Amino acid sequence: MITRSRAIDPPKLELEEGAVFTPRFDADGLIVCVTRDVQDGQILMLAYMNTEALRLTLETGYAHYWSRSRKTLWRKGDKSGQSQKIVEIRTDCDQDALLLTVEQSGGGACHTGRRSCFYRKIIAAENPAKLVFTADYTDLVLQEPKPPERRAESDDAEILRGAKPTLAD
Amino acid sequence: MITRSRAIDPPKLELEEGAVFTPRFDADGLIVCVTRDVQDGQILMLAYMNTEALRLTLETGYAHYWSRSRKTLWRKGDKSGQSQKIVEIRTDCDQDALLLTVEQSGGGACHTGRRSCFYRKIIAAENPAKLVFTADYTDLVLQEPKPPERRAESDDAEILRGAKPTLAD
Repeated sequence: MITRSRAIDPPKLELEEGAVFTPRFDADGLIVCVTRDVQDGQILMLAYMNTEALRLTLETGYAHYWSRSRKTLWRKGDKSGQSQKIVEIRTDCDQDALLLTVEQSGGGACHTGRRSCFYRKIIAAENPAKLVFTADYTDLVLQEPKPPERRAESDDAEILRGAKPTLAD
Repeated sequence: MITRSRAIDPPKLELEEGAVFTPRFDADGLIVCVTRDVQDGQILMLAYMNTEALRLTLETGYAHYWSRSRKTLWRKGDKSGQSQKIVEIRTDCDQDALLLTVEQSGGGACHTGRRSCFYRKIIAAENPAKLVFTADYTDLVLQEPKPPERRAESDDAEILRGAKPTLAD
């Protein structure tokens, strides 16, 4: 369903005010996706799609993502039960980001067992900056978070050992 | 306030369940940020920060971002008036994404004059997939969107000519 292929970007006006979906993937072939819950609009997670994940998402109506650490495509919830039925997908002004609205199954989206991946807020006044666990919409869905050894088996757990991010100094 | 510097990532458990903020920047030194409005939680925009933008955001209490196209740091709203006062910042489970909650000034966050950058939804049933302008929370804030020639001067307009994304086929 994403059939356009152009060597150069569409003109800025067409990209911003046009009616044709021309998603702009980055140098790694990925587009960033924010996912929110249709029930109350709260942010569940942030992930990435490649062309194939986007195609499958549009065709099947269920969220598919690309795991940057495992370098594999996965249908969200295939192993965890945390599947996401698509209600709506939006793109932003310059079409390099997506906003998914979903019906979340399995009680939550985070592989730690929480409803949302954004379960800690930053306390900037301390040095180094601290994190505080929140008790609002990111309340634990499960009675107990999955223990770490089980989480490694989750279909959406990022295998951190494989990633080589730069840390702030 | 971001004082930690480590050659390798913290252990997975520490990253996910710890109380120290250790943001993980990507190979380009950036971390992705989703920004929502404190009034109703709606998503306003998606952008990126480098270490300096994050430091300035934490220290000043106003959102600073890194423009990938212009390769400059900018304080959101400096030219447009669309400044964002930080209410809260969260990080996700593996600390490679941020969720900002802000008090949005200037009527909206998008350089097109709309409240949100996510003002179009995807109609996947058509081929090629179409975009439909939405009339809900992304209603125009201004009576008319800024004309394109004025938008180019906006402090948060991505200069698309400079970007070289890959388009889906």
